[in-house]
Order: sequence, then structure tokens, then C-alpha cells
Amino acid sequence: MLSKTKIKQIKSLEYKKFRNELGLFVAEGEKLVTEILQSDFQINSLFCLPNTVLPKHNARLEIISETEMKRISFLKTPSTALAVIKIPDKKININVINSSLSIVLDDIQDPGNLGTIIRLCDWFGIQNIICSLKTADCFSPKAVQATMGAICRINVFYVELNDFFNNIDKNITVYGTFLEGENIYNTKLSSSGIIIMGNEGQGIAPEIEKYVNQKLYIPCFSNDAAKQPESLNVSVATAIVCSEFKRRFL
Amino acid sequence: MLSKTKIKQIKSLEYKKFRNELGLFVAEGEKLVTEILQSDFQINSLFCLPNTVLPKHNARLEIISETEMKRISFLKTPSTALAVIKIPDKKININVINSSLSIVLDDIQDPGNLGTIIRLCDWFGIQNIICSLKTADCFSPKAVQATMGAICRINVFYVELNDFFNNIDKNITVYGTFLEGENIYNTKLSSSGIIIMGNEGQGIAPEIEKYVNQKLYIPCFSNDAAKQPESLNVSVATAIVCSEFKRRFL
Repeated sequence: MLSKTKIKQIKSLEYKKFRNELGLFVAEGEKLVTEILQSDFQINSLFCLPNTVLPKHNARLEIISETEMKRISFLKTPSTALAVIKIPDKKININVINSSLSIVLDDIQDPGNLGTIIRLCDWFGIQNIICSLKTADCFSPKAVQATMGAICRINVFYVELNDFFNNIDKNITVYGTFLEGENIYNTKLSSSGIIIMGNEGQGIAPEIEKYVNQKLYIPCFSNDAAKQPESLNVSVATAIVCSEFKRRFL
Repeated sequence: MLSKTKIKQIKSLEYKKFRNELGLFVAEGEKLVTEILQSDFQINSLFCLPNTVLPKHNARLEIISETEMKRISFLKTPSTALAVIKIPDKKININVINSSLSIVLDDIQDPGNLGTIIRLCDWFGIQNIICSLKTADCFSPKAVQATMGAICRINVFYVELNDFFNNIDKNITVYGTFLEGENIYNTKLSSSGIIIMGNEGQGIAPEIEKYVNQKLYIPCFSNDAAKQPESLNVSVATAIVCSEFKRRFL
């Protein structure tokens, strides 16, 4: 039986303030909870409906009713399992950043976009995502769900981007996507470096643009010269950029 | 002053049943409404807050208050302009399909994914999207907003896919994205053809798969052989596929 205090605590995890205070976040769905249980994440509490199949784990499992699940779920259609998880405390490894390909997100606002970007970084073997402090929180329920489990495998850091750029190797190539620059399809790309993706409406901020030493753009193929689309969705643009970087080194 | 009947009518357009009955859909936001007014779409009614700047148009404009806008808006944060638009009656041109690159969507469920796909097709100059009858409705408020105006420029058709495939040229290449097949990065791709993208959970249905004559997959670059991600978000996968098809013919 779920206590009112517990329900209130779980529901409070919709908000970043309470996630940070409690150091906890929520993941839902049998598939996602299964991936969490098989990862290094530490479980705070675990709830499921009767007859739900979950892998072996050490967490204390509480079997609850559908009505109770509805009370704690953030989904429109509550699923069969919900886990409350400790937010991991990870530190950036600058040596890894200096020698691999990483993504920097400059104020991505939409948690769905963020979650989708984490998911596609997992697909493309990009291990580290460095976010500006104003970027959406990767532990918000919407972002976590959109990662489809990639949140277990990808490191997401929140830092003051100026500090970050001042700490990395000065010789590393910093790519930025803009509406002008070099056509990404014809440009030599390196197997390591930083790719900056900008805010949904504003793109990369001028104070971050100064760190870019290779501007890239994705050419538009629209047939109608009079009515060109303005931009691509940021998660879609990130996917195209990651695909271009990775296919070159197949 | 908005009548209760008008408010009720507009709010009913959240549902496909009423959109089809009335032949109307809603678009919101100054930018999107501006694009709609500059397109061939016919306006049924148009609402904006005082001092909103819209381009010249022939529609009857009603200036309303913020409170009234909140009553008719589908957005969490209502914008300054809302248009009610006639759903266009477009017919597939099979000759165009036979000689260009088109996308077929097999039961895409999420209106946000659908809107994002319409937007990226606009970017990549893919003029025609053919959807199975169970694919999300492109005129739902969420899909329209996610297109960011591309709904004005791209043709979206809803048809029985078996009929569609039986009507097109037998020599056209039909590509389908799967988890196996040919690595898309190394495969010869044609400048015209059909690309089928499948449902978010199930992929391409077996009864549609039979029309595919070239299976493609996007290779996974994950470093962790033990914990590979299962799939990519469908709008992200569509973006990568379109990017590959188009860059070859730059």
C-alpha cells in the first residue's frame, strides 16, 4: 500500500527543484525499467503491477494496483513498472573528451528533443554530451522516456560552457552547425572533436560561437526557391550531423 | 466577441472525427499563421490579439482578447494568432510518384513524429508523403505545429497502401528500412523511388514488406557490444535516410 507521503514525493519528481533536492528521478515502462535494473544506476524504490516480469535485482519491489500506479505515473497511459532512481554523480573526463567525438548542447529547451538526442548519441557511439546550464534536464520524466534507455549508457553533464571550452585541448576541432559555413557533405570531418548544437529558436549563442573553429551547415534541397523552409528540428539536425561524422570512418 | 458555438467548434477540431466532418483544421502562432496566409490554403476564420502583425490577406480577421485566445488555443502557452483552415482536397499524381523520391509511412502513430517528418521532407525537397490509413492525422494540432509551416508545402496523402503499391510503376525501386539488409552508407541509391518508414514499435508490417525490393539499415556505432540500443526514433531514422539519398546527387 502506497503512503500519501510516498505518492507526493514521487509526483514532486516532475520538477527539477525536487529532483535535485532529493537526488532522484523516475523511469517508467517495463522495457525502460528493465534496462535501468541491468545498468549501474542505483534504485531507490521500485513499483510494478502484479505479474510484471522484471530481471533479477536487489531493489525492494512493491507490487501495487493499477489505481495506485495511476497515482504515481507521469504517463497518460500508465505502464506496468515504475522505478525511482538515484541521480548518478558523474565527472567529466577531459582526456576522453580530448580524444573522442562529443556533443555540446547550447540551451536545448525541449526535453523530448534532449531525450531523442541522447538516444541517437547512443546509436552513434557518442558517449559524452555536455549541456549548458540552461539546457533541459535529462532526468525530467519526458526526457528520460524519450531516451528509451540510452540514459543508462550515455554521460550527460551540465556545466558552464565557457569553463568547459577553456579546459579542453586547444587543438581539438570545435564544429558548430549554422545556416551558413561549409556544406557538411563536402567537408573533411575528424573522428574526434566537439560538435555544438544550438537552441531550437536561437541557434548557437554568440558567446559560444566564438569557440567554433569549423562552421558547418546542412544544405537545403527544397525545390521551391521562393518558399524555403527555415530550419530543421534540432534532434533531426543532430542525427544528420552524427550520421555524416560516423559514416566517414566506417 | 467569440460566441460559445464558435469556441466549441474550434475546440472540437482537436478530434479527427470533427476535422473530417467540418473539413477544417487549426494552426497557431504568428509565424505559422503567416506562412498559411501566404500559401494556397483557404482560411475559414482568423483570430489574433491586438497589435499582431500578419501579412495581407482576404480572410475576415477577428481581434480577440488573451482570455478568449486561451479558450480556443490548443497550446500550453497560447500565441498571438490562430487560424481555422480548410483541409485541402489533393489527389496523388502517380506520374510524379513514378519519377521522383517519395516517402511512405506505414502506421506512424505519434503526431509529433509525423509533423517532424513532414518538416524534414520539406527540407530535403521530398514533395509527397503517402500514409497508411492508420498513420496519425497530419491535420491534428500537434502534427501541424511540429511541421513548422511545412504542411503548406508538402503533399500528405492517406491511402490504402496495398492499392497504392498496386498502382505505381512496377520498375520503381521500393526501399524499406529494417534492422537488417544493406548498410545504407555503402549501397547504391537511386534519385527516384519510394522509401517506406515503419511504425514506431513494430516497424514495417509484413503485408507491406512484400513491396520492398531493397532493404536498408542504418548501422549502429555503439561501443558497447553487450548493451546495444535497439532502434532509432522514426523521425531521426527518416532524417538520416533522406540525408543519404539526397547527398549522393549533390
